[in-house]
Amino acid sequence: MTKVYRSELTPISFLERSQLIFPNKTAVVHGSRRYTYRQFGERVYRLASRLRAVGLEKGDRVAFLAPNIPPLLEAHYGVPAAGGILVAINTRLNSQEIDFILKHCGAKFLFVDAELKHLIDPLSLEGVEVIRIDDTGEERDPYEQFLAAGSPKPIDSVLEDEEETISINYTSGTTGNPKGVMYSYRGVYLNALSEVIETGLNSSSIYLWTLPMFHCNGWCFTWAVTAVGATHVCLRKLDPELIWDLFHREGITHYNGAPTIQIMLVNHPKAKRLSKQVVSTVAGAPPSPTLLGQMNELNIRPIHVYGLTETYGPYTVCEWHEEWNDLPLNEQARLLARQGQGYVTAERARVVDDQMNDVAWDGKTMGEVVMRGNNVAKGYYKNPEATKEAFAGNWFHSGDLGVWHPDGYIELRDRSKDIIISGGENISSIEVEQTIAQHPAVLECAVIAIPHEKWGERPKAFVTLKPGKSATEQEIIQFCRERLARYKCPDQVAFGDLPKTSTGKVQKYILRNKEWAKMDKFIN
Amino acid sequence: MTKVYRSELTPISFLERSQLIFPNKTAVVHGSRRYTYRQFGERVYRLASRLRAVGLEKGDRVAFLAPNIPPLLEAHYGVPAAGGILVAINTRLNSQEIDFILKHCGAKFLFVDAELKHLIDPLSLEGVEVIRIDDTGEERDPYEQFLAAGSPKPIDSVLEDEEETISINYTSGTTGNPKGVMYSYRGVYLNALSEVIETGLNSSSIYLWTLPMFHCNGWCFTWAVTAVGATHVCLRKLDPELIWDLFHREGITHYNGAPTIQIMLVNHPKAKRLSKQVVSTVAGAPPSPTLLGQMNELNIRPIHVYGLTETYGPYTVCEWHEEWNDLPLNEQARLLARQGQGYVTAERARVVDDQMNDVAWDGKTMGEVVMRGNNVAKGYYKNPEATKEAFAGNWFHSGDLGVWHPDGYIELRDRSKDIIISGGENISSIEVEQTIAQHPAVLECAVIAIPHEKWGERPKAFVTLKPGKSATEQEIIQFCRERLARYKCPDQVAFGDLPKTSTGKVQKYILRNKEWAKMDKFIN
Repeated sequence: MTKVYRSELTPISFLERSQLIFPNKTAVVHGSRRYTYRQFGERVYRLASRLRAVGLEKGDRVAFLAPNIPPLLEAHYGVPAAGGILVAINTRLNSQEIDFILKHCGAKFLFVDAELKHLIDPLSLEGVEVIRIDDTGEERDPYEQFLAAGSPKPIDSVLEDEEETISINYTSGTTGNPKGVMYSYRGVYLNALSEVIETGLNSSSIYLWTLPMFHCNGWCFTWAVTAVGATHVCLRKLDPELIWDLFHREGITHYNGAPTIQIMLVNHPKAKRLSKQVVSTVAGAPPSPTLLGQMNELNIRPIHVYGLTETYGPYTVCEWHEEWNDLPLNEQARLLARQGQGYVTAERARVVDDQMNDVAWDGKTMGEVVMRGNNVAKGYYKNPEATKEAFAGNWFHSGDLGVWHPDGYIELRDRSKDIIISGGENISSIEVEQTIAQHPAVLECAVIAIPHEKWGERPKAFVTLKPGKSATEQEIIQFCRERLARYKCPDQVAFGDLPKTSTGKVQKYILRNKEWAKMDKFIN
Repeated sequence: MTKVYRSELTPISFLERSQLIFPNKTAVVHGSRRYTYRQFGERVYRLASRLRAVGLEKGDRVAFLAPNIPPLLEAHYGVPAAGGILVAINTRLNSQEIDFILKHCGAKFLFVDAELKHLIDPLSLEGVEVIRIDDTGEERDPYEQFLAAGSPKPIDSVLEDEEETISINYTSGTTGNPKGVMYSYRGVYLNALSEVIETGLNSSSIYLWTLPMFHCNGWCFTWAVTAVGATHVCLRKLDPELIWDLFHREGITHYNGAPTIQIMLVNHPKAKRLSKQVVSTVAGAPPSPTLLGQMNELNIRPIHVYGLTETYGPYTVCEWHEEWNDLPLNEQARLLARQGQGYVTAERARVVDDQMNDVAWDGKTMGEVVMRGNNVAKGYYKNPEATKEAFAGNWFHSGDLGVWHPDGYIELRDRSKDIIISGGENISSIEVEQTIAQHPAVLECAVIAIPHEKWGERPKAFVTLKPGKSATEQEIIQFCRERLARYKCPDQVAFGDLPKTSTGKVQKYILRNKEWAKMDKFIN
């Protein structure tokens, strides 16, 4: 029985509303192309109705392999409107990795950008309908032909429960194979509202798509920007010169990026103080004092946030206190470097010991960061064991190690899950280790993160060769490049014995202590 | 079984969060008193724990009769934290009306401000524990003694389902007796987030309590302001001179008010252009061109919103379009006078004919405004018949008549439910009629709204006397004053026959046509 006083939370309502209220306002900018909210909505319904017409049934997975272009944004509404589940694939993966994801999620459709098509050409994709996107917006573009065959009229929702799955986001976790993190309608809806509130989005905002939409569905900004009737500015490529042009030409007010991206931007010759303040969340790692100073100088206000794919992107924010404005820059950066506390729709993030008790709020005692509630995803698709493990004790275990400060803010100090974060992208050290171990000359190996000025962290491999065999650093790196996405391959390879415990377990901390000797924590 | 990825939506989480993140920030200002978020939270937990200690059980009703003072704000957290249901009573009601509400809701506790205590003195309140509030904040204040006996530590939640009732707000409806509108935790949570987004609240905001907290729980700003860690500035009384002082002294950024209040403020001798823009929602009736011009002049940005007690206060907002800035003031006022469309968390407001079909989007065809979804309250407490009637056809029937413009915005034109809105307060014309009918000289009567410059609308009575009996206008008004809250009593009484249909039904529209001849619609 329908309740008059309840509607299931769905981000599709955001588009319906902005299409009604701001039909002639610019919703999407892509180079010289512009779509109003009316057009954006019509394109979404064309996509949805066409998907249904060609056989999509409720719950079917629809994969997209594309940069930040209008079709991928449209997919965030059109796929769920049709009743499907969106799988936006990381465009930096290689063919085998993409193949694993397509097969694991059982994609029925795959939309692929023409420039990325070479990645799927080697794959046998039986049972998957592939639609190419030329990103021209013109009639002959196969994606546009797909839309043209659909209807621009709103279609009936098949959503019955806001806890249904709207998207699956694959992430590199502790094991070699990526895991599919399931997002719910309720979760992305609340998270989108939170992003609006935390970053102060409103109908005058102009959001630049520097953050990949395949990352946690662009941390739900795909939905947040639309919720307030703001403008999406798409971006095929992270070109800092173009970004500075867009800042001025389009009047950008908001963008998101890891420190790597921020550093690239603030150091670009075109960098010039912005007349109107631009807000930018910084995720993946905290901004250094230098970076913070440069951003201030350019009139870019950083908001430091922290989260994981399993938490719809950001879960915590380092809420700024006005009185910090008067502190020296180094002190400001030190305070801002902390991950802070949960978003307005999130529960308190905790740092706990092995018994799940809170650690002391002393800024010293280490523990694991755990989270729960509406900002935690539903679990891993077709992987109940991994879900059970991650949700042990009824809390989501981030695998990140940190401390709890006397003021309640948490701060990360290390990662327990062997994740390397390079330029905002997760790399599983175990995946890299398993790849190197396949090399015929390798006896065993360990991969750790080492600090890197530009990328934050990069993988370094420590390799023991089999007796009588030989391999060079370049051979090992090349071996990885043939098997892994390029960004996952180690920059450095060192040869020799690995430090081990008496029971034979590799002591990675000894390797890390040496590499991180100059830093005060093990993440960068 | 607890789901790791779900928490029940509750606005108490907003206070928990702000207490954690902004412990030393000013949460509440009341004259020279100031409470930080830590203190605010501790006072709330004292209230909650003390309520439990003295016998409050889950679902018990706790009534408050108080102006906009800290205890009533604290009640919005402390009562639900204890597991109770808050009943904030309109302070302008008379003793009988208050008696009805206390008995109807079955209040177990009544907190009453010392200045309003005379209203309950005549009542027999067996079984109700009465706690007086002196509003001194000092030790000898009975309310402070109540808190002192409680514990400042957070207490365990007893909330099991976000659709449970958090508060009951009594409203004058179509019938004489007020109806208790039930708000859910989910509803107020989502509504609070919407208010944050629509009015742009953030942690720097300073909110002035011009809107009564007993009105739809202060339209959920009681919770919204806390959600972002902003500051509440309390206000015992609507004193325009004090308000202008507070604008400057406290740096107010937001307040809410009906046009009556706005007019009072902009025309006050102390009115002076504000250096920083202040945002004010205008509800109950649209701002006139004159008022809009004056507000612009003073740097106050009006946001026109519309809703009812049954919709948590505002349901629609007249979202401003940037291009309207260039239009003449009259034209701006005409566009802003429209009620607009649903909030970001609301579904589309519809205007429908008798068959529940959408009327034409022509700005001319009249129909009833209907609404549904998360921004609609749960129904009327202990009044399933009224709930069933209001929810007929699975939509909430506002009783308001309006048109649908070609751009999708709705605009009210009349009310079908005999509601008179005077200075932002609802008056039931039927309640006034039933009162007048009790006068021994009265045969029958009809009460309608007439336009009023200051109050928007005021009640006027048309009375037919019994043959051979007599009564003067002043006698009738006095008779009402002895039985009704003063603001409900008619300003004018006219004597004579009432226009009727052939079946004997009073034709109110004929009376109204005459009184409203100079206006283009029947609401003001």
